[in-house]
Order: sequence, then structure tokens, then C-alpha cells
Amino acid sequence: MSYIRETIVTTIGADGTVHIAPLGIISKDDGWIIAPFRPSRTLDNLAAVPVAVVNYTDDMRIFAGCLTGRKAWPLVKVDGCPVPRLEAALSHSVLEVVSVEDDGVRPRHFCRVASEGCHAPFLGLNRAKAAVLELAILVSRLHMLPKEKIDSEIAYLTIAIDKTAGPNERQAWDWLMERVRQHAGET
Amino acid sequence: MSYIRETIVTTIGADGTVHIAPLGIISKDDGWIIAPFRPSRTLDNLAAVPVAVVNYTDDMRIFAGCLTGRKAWPLVKVDGCPVPRLEAALSHSVLEVVSVEDDGVRPRHFCRVASEGCHAPFLGLNRAKAAVLELAILVSRLHMLPKEKIDSEIAYLTIAIDKTAGPNERQAWDWLMERVRQHAGET
Repeated sequence: MSYIRETIVTTIGADGTVHIAPLGIISKDDGWIIAPFRPSRTLDNLAAVPVAVVNYTDDMRIFAGCLTGRKAWPLVKVDGCPVPRLEAALSHSVLEVVSVEDDGVRPRHFCRVASEGCHAPFLGLNRAKAAVLELAILVSRLHMLPKEKIDSEIAYLTIAIDKTAGPNERQAWDWLMERVRQHAGET
Repeated sequence: MSYIRETIVTTIGADGTVHIAPLGIISKDDGWIIAPFRPSRTLDNLAAVPVAVVNYTDDMRIFAGCLTGRKAWPLVKVDGCPVPRLEAALSHSVLEVVSVEDDGVRPRHFCRVASEGCHAPFLGLNRAKAAVLELAILVSRLHMLPKEKIDSEIAYLTIAIDKTAGPNERQAWDWLMERVRQHAGET
């Protein structure tokens, strides 16, 4: 498999409305593949305006927020680019879609890097951030997973949360766990 | 518990010899606690020269390398500081030891931030990097863990490696797995 960066991708629709979504971008030759699910707003937006800003952030509230209906994260204009970036981006890449390989599930948009910017220093890895990311992926797949798998994975991830989280990671974790409990109540 | 940054800490001995070690630094009030195990080179060095450079890097080869006898990572001078930083640091903090709370196992060095520097952009979270970090922690505790716990944790972490690792993450993973196999052969 290929290297995958876990990011928040900003795109705009034909009317300029901004959409932000957590997406893994896949390393490919000298560029990156964005493969949004069909149907999705990111997919529609890339058809309308074939430019994406890939935001590199470790603020896990944004990943968890996007999955739980909290999408109003501050945006900042990027010079020479129609699409804004997240204010919280430590750095960003502007990607231009070069070609699209169609697919019934996840059309693969091959992109080249048009420009990049660095905004704030990276301040170290944190195990709780990684645990939130894993829980976010779990939450996006709840309907496909047996209860035992969900419970055992959460038990494992809770260790890093209890040992290393700050208030922001705990907030992100709690938003996602609320969704897990909702799902458990529905099934 | 408190927020913990997983970092590579550089210190020097009285003779100027540099030591690098993976260490989690613990958030405390307006500073950070470094709590090296007793005995350790980092502990001796902080007694001789009470300054540490905390290197924020997501190059997992350095974490895995330090645990498997590969310690020759390039260093760079930090202006106004006797201790160098890693060339691979995306950013760094210079910490000065303000006080030491003695402890039989891990004396707690309370430090204040003397200066900081930013050297390269953060380029996104990656699940394989986080999996390498968890395996590194597992490897440092092999002698305390039952075989079933080791095997099941590695099986879980392997998923992220297979799906999202690049060559550097795979290299770091392989170095650590070599150590896991050595341990299994010894027990």
C-alpha cells in the first residue's frame, strides 16, 4: 500500500460555498490522490472547482467535529487560490486536480502540488491524538462492525486517552464517544 | 492525567558528549516535566548540564532507532544553547531545569521553556507513525508483558502499517519487530 496523510480537505462549490472534510490523501508518484466517496460534497466540489486545500493539522477537535456535525472551523484566505485553508492548519498544500480515474465507489483524483505554506510549528506527537484519529475512523465504520470489535478497540484506545490527553483531545474523544453510544442505542 | 508530548530529548554530559533519547514530556503549569528513569544517561546529563533540547519530530526511524542501538542521527547547533538539536526536528524547545523532585524511579525535572525554533512544516498525521510509536512503547516494556498481550497488540497495529506506511515507517517498524522476535527467542 501507499503512504497516506490524514488531513482535513477544504473545497468550494460553484457558488463558492466552502466544505471541509477529513480525508486521507494517498501518495502517488510526484503527487497525491484524493478519493472522495460517491456521493459526497467533496466529490461534487472537485467537479465544479478542481482545486483542494489540504490542511495539515493535529487539532483532533476538527477531525471529530466534522464527523459529529461541528463544521464551523475558522477559515483563512490563501493567496492566489480560490479555496481557503483552516486557520488551525500548521501547514497546507494547494492541490490541483490533473486527472480523474472513475470508480463506482471512490473516484481517484490525481493531483499535483501547486503551492504550500507553513503557519505554525509542530509541537510533538501525542498518543491521545492518534487514539482520537483511530476512534474517528471507527465511528465512520460503526454500521459495518460487530459490537465486540468496537468495544475491544475502544478499550485499547482509552489507555492512551487516559494517560496522555489534554482538554482538546478529551473533547474530541467525548464527541466521538457520544456518537458511539447513539449507535449502540439504535442497534 | 496530563498532556504528554512524545519527543526526542537531547542532553550533554560534563564533557560535552551528546545523548539522544525518546522521552515523553509532561505538561505542568506553564512548563514541562522531564522524568528520566534512574539510572539513565539523560538523568546524569541533566545533573551535569541542566538544559535539554526537546526535538519535535515525526520521523519514526529516530524513535525506533534509539531503542535498537541506532543513535547516530545528525545534529545541528542551536544558537545560544550548549545542547544541539536533531537536524530532523520540525521544531524544538530549549528547556531549562528549574527544580527537581526526587523519586526512586523517575526524578521529576520541572523545566521552563527558554526558547523555541521552527525548522520545517508538519506534513500531516499518519496512522503508521502512530503505530510505530505504540510498538516502540511496547518494545520498551517487553519484559513486563505476557506473550498474548504482545501478539494481539502487534496484530492490531499491523493494520495501520499495512494500510498507510511509507518506506521510513516500514523501516522503523522492522527495526522494532526484530527486537520483538529477539525477545520471543529468548523467552
